[in-house]
Amino acid sequence: MTTPGPRTAVDPIDAFHLYDTTLRDGSQQEGLTLSVADKLAVARHLDELGVTYIEGGWPGAVPRDTEFFARARTELDLRCARLAAFGATRKAGVPVQEDPQVAALVDSEAPTVTLVAKSDLRHVTGALRTDGEENLAMVRDTVTHLVRLGREVFVDAEHFFDGFAHDPDYTTSVVVEAFAAGARVVVLCDTNGGMLPHQVTEVVEELRARLKAAGHAGARLGAHTHNDSGCAVANALMAVRSGITHVQGCVNGYGERTGNADLLTMLGDLQLKMGLDLVPGETLAEATRIAHAIGEIVNMPVGARAPYVGASAFAHKAGLHASAIRVDPDLYQHMDPRAIGNDMRMIISDMAGRASIELKGRELGFDLTGQKNLLGRLAGTVKQREAEGYSYEAADASFELLLLEEMGRVPRYFEVESWRATSQQLRDGTLETEATVKLRGAGTDGADGGRSVAIAEGNGPVNALDLALRQALRDRFPLIDELELQDFKVRILDAHHGTDATTRVLVRTAGADLEFTTVGVGPNLIEASWEAISDAYTYGLYKAGITPSAPGLG
Amino acid sequence: MTTPGPRTAVDPIDAFHLYDTTLRDGSQQEGLTLSVADKLAVARHLDELGVTYIEGGWPGAVPRDTEFFARARTELDLRCARLAAFGATRKAGVPVQEDPQVAALVDSEAPTVTLVAKSDLRHVTGALRTDGEENLAMVRDTVTHLVRLGREVFVDAEHFFDGFAHDPDYTTSVVVEAFAAGARVVVLCDTNGGMLPHQVTEVVEELRARLKAAGHAGARLGAHTHNDSGCAVANALMAVRSGITHVQGCVNGYGERTGNADLLTMLGDLQLKMGLDLVPGETLAEATRIAHAIGEIVNMPVGARAPYVGASAFAHKAGLHASAIRVDPDLYQHMDPRAIGNDMRMIISDMAGRASIELKGRELGFDLTGQKNLLGRLAGTVKQREAEGYSYEAADASFELLLLEEMGRVPRYFEVESWRATSQQLRDGTLETEATVKLRGAGTDGADGGRSVAIAEGNGPVNALDLALRQALRDRFPLIDELELQDFKVRILDAHHGTDATTRVLVRTAGADLEFTTVGVGPNLIEASWEAISDAYTYGLYKAGITPSAPGLG
Repeated sequence: MTTPGPRTAVDPIDAFHLYDTTLRDGSQQEGLTLSVADKLAVARHLDELGVTYIEGGWPGAVPRDTEFFARARTELDLRCARLAAFGATRKAGVPVQEDPQVAALVDSEAPTVTLVAKSDLRHVTGALRTDGEENLAMVRDTVTHLVRLGREVFVDAEHFFDGFAHDPDYTTSVVVEAFAAGARVVVLCDTNGGMLPHQVTEVVEELRARLKAAGHAGARLGAHTHNDSGCAVANALMAVRSGITHVQGCVNGYGERTGNADLLTMLGDLQLKMGLDLVPGETLAEATRIAHAIGEIVNMPVGARAPYVGASAFAHKAGLHASAIRVDPDLYQHMDPRAIGNDMRMIISDMAGRASIELKGRELGFDLTGQKNLLGRLAGTVKQREAEGYSYEAADASFELLLLEEMGRVPRYFEVESWRATSQQLRDGTLETEATVKLRGAGTDGADGGRSVAIAEGNGPVNALDLALRQALRDRFPLIDELELQDFKVRILDAHHGTDATTRVLVRTAGADLEFTTVGVGPNLIEASWEAISDAYTYGLYKAGITPSAPGLG
Repeated sequence: MTTPGPRTAVDPIDAFHLYDTTLRDGSQQEGLTLSVADKLAVARHLDELGVTYIEGGWPGAVPRDTEFFARARTELDLRCARLAAFGATRKAGVPVQEDPQVAALVDSEAPTVTLVAKSDLRHVTGALRTDGEENLAMVRDTVTHLVRLGREVFVDAEHFFDGFAHDPDYTTSVVVEAFAAGARVVVLCDTNGGMLPHQVTEVVEELRARLKAAGHAGARLGAHTHNDSGCAVANALMAVRSGITHVQGCVNGYGERTGNADLLTMLGDLQLKMGLDLVPGETLAEATRIAHAIGEIVNMPVGARAPYVGASAFAHKAGLHASAIRVDPDLYQHMDPRAIGNDMRMIISDMAGRASIELKGRELGFDLTGQKNLLGRLAGTVKQREAEGYSYEAADASFELLLLEEMGRVPRYFEVESWRATSQQLRDGTLETEATVKLRGAGTDGADGGRSVAIAEGNGPVNALDLALRQALRDRFPLIDELELQDFKVRILDAHHGTDATTRVLVRTAGADLEFTTVGVGPNLIEASWEAISDAYTYGLYKAGITPSAPGLG
């Protein structure tokens, strides 16, 4: 990590700040917990995305964050972003040199420090339990101290909008104090997230008039918005329209309560619709991949409906659309999904008519033009299986197997005789899980390829079955060991029946240059898993070009 | 279903239309499929919420929707909302009286018909394959025909904003034609969802000027927005600021691609922040319950981060906030969550300090003020167990058991000796699942309450274990049969290890006047489920006031 001096006005990257706070405010999200290793991994992705600043955490207050900044010095080599440490102004009544939390900010060695300062007088008296004058002194002392030590200082004016509505003079005085002490940016925070877009415009414009009157006409403002009114992104955009040149947000809209403004949605809107030149085009085309990679790291997947980067963002289901899209895809999308690394996709569901299935087939590399009978049969099968609980929307591989089956092109690699999975807790508390699988290999011509019996222990019944099945197939099809089951999702379909409901299992498999998802359904979770796993091996072998009569088949 | 004539300007409920399209546009959402029974159930909830219009579907195009309108006539008794049927203008070159889809709209007997009309010339030529003049005639003929038959007619001007940017004269002429033919509202649709708030303001204001010039100064406009730029709600609010008095949206933001404008977020913003009087206060206080009820019916739960009604919308995690909230909750929320039927909630996580645990304890009815040691021990246990994969954020009952355990107050109702669960597929294809449970009942004083051995078959291994455990406990604790396992959620914690990953199971149990969630964790899904289920029975028995020495214990 290098520690350059503050950026100057001629630095082109400094013209507009895309400030990410996923590692700080984002981790306030319910259900989201980040290890130091997670934080470092997320920071690398954010740098790759080209954000201007990465707020790494609150050193001195959160031990993990102190460690993050220490490890960042040797383990992070940022190409583009600067690291910012978040912290509070000095405590009331404590000289700034003696405040251990201010010292921790300095010790973090982050080149930029973002100080949170109270700007709503009610919070100053009610939460900080001090008075307005002392709060101003806290801002002045802390900013001055850090600027003197060569840090670039930003000030987050907490509860700015609520404060401005309550007492605009006091709230303005906090902003003025911060600039006077040397803050490079003062960030207007809608901490409780309740603002509406037209209010943001009104307040920012009035503040700018007041700042001009106070001799800070060119002062640089930022916006930090939350989604409690469903307007986080819009509020930031309106602030930009009113002259703000620094926006804060979190990848995938993570954040406390309803979340922070979604950084990637803002990036898409600002760059593709408002003409700001924030990141190179080839970097923007990585945005979808990066959003999903971060979702995996923090273990909170990107919402399917997320603008720009969500799995459904360019997915079309209506039959009406399917026919028009065959004519001209641009008629039905607000921008080219490739610009952000996403794709247009047809959804196969029970609403799918022949046109959708024809388009989906084309996506998978099959030209089904004019094959009315085949398309009609497939549409019927999809409808019936969806009614049973199958879902092909997320399981392209199972849909392709269905299509291949209908065309008579799926080889039978094996014929299962029986299987069994047992989990037990013994009297001494030990857990034991084992599975047995008995199968026969068989050729497409029905020839018998010999019998296999395998037993395996596993961490759980599905894992044990998977291991036993692999063992039974390994000698015939060594490729099996290249296929790894990467994810395993269970969905209870009828939530009103608890443990005796129908279960849908989705299994994602990767390896042998493939990545695909299969689906299994049944009242018994083990049976549904078995179906998804055995389909995964069939699909993997087929796509790898293996035929049942390959060497190794008995 | 009654079929009143069109509303007049003096009807107070007509002053502003909250138009719900969950049953039509919402069902275009990927993964969402509604049966006719689902649609009827959702419609009842929407009516209870007080929406002005419920768009039920597209009779004549979707067989399920035709059936919906037929059944609605006898099965729906709407208190407040009117039913609208959605459909297209007549086909090009076909007289309106001969168009079967127009006839289906009439046959639906819906008092209101919402016609979708092309208003972007590129779609007229590219998708409809006709010309601008014929498209205007299609609008004119269809509106006139339906108005003559006594229907209230709304026109959805599809791709209005894109069309206006491309050719404002033609797009305006479609709107004028609709009003001239008798449409009560023309709805400006951002069909592709790409608009930004300031653009909506500009376009709506320019359109109003053009309508005034064309002699339709008082004409009523609506807005139909999608979330592709992350601005669906904001766009609708800006349209309202520009004089629009009809907004369309879907509950929980369902809808194709990124979804439609979230109807409940708009309701909250319009009523609580912009001062419109749309529904009675006591109805608004049902909004959270209704949002979740609809989420259950359509099998797509409300997102935790949903504004106003999400589970996290008023949930506080940061230790900083916890201390301030003890002083004054209003400092940290944008409105009183009770107004919308939601609640402030403290989140217990590994970030929770003693203050959060003290507040959470108070929520659960325990006064832990000043019990520093207990609070410190609990914070430590929570931190350690969360590191192992437990999550108490959603499992209040397991957290309470932890707290009770720490206070030495949980009775041991039973001591498990061993259990076993087996699933197998036999040679003839039959599936068999059975479980055995062996346990001893035990008193709090350690006295032995006798041994039970039970076996049960089930649909799956967890169901079989649940049934066997119930059977082993039933004689001692008949209350067990009142507790029903209602939902069972499985989360794979380490998505990079497929079937051998750690598993977290959440079980929701209801009955005996209780509803609660317990959590279990382990590499084996069956073991994790066993933990969550046995904790559920312990918690249920304890909360019902049963003691191990109650009658029935051997």
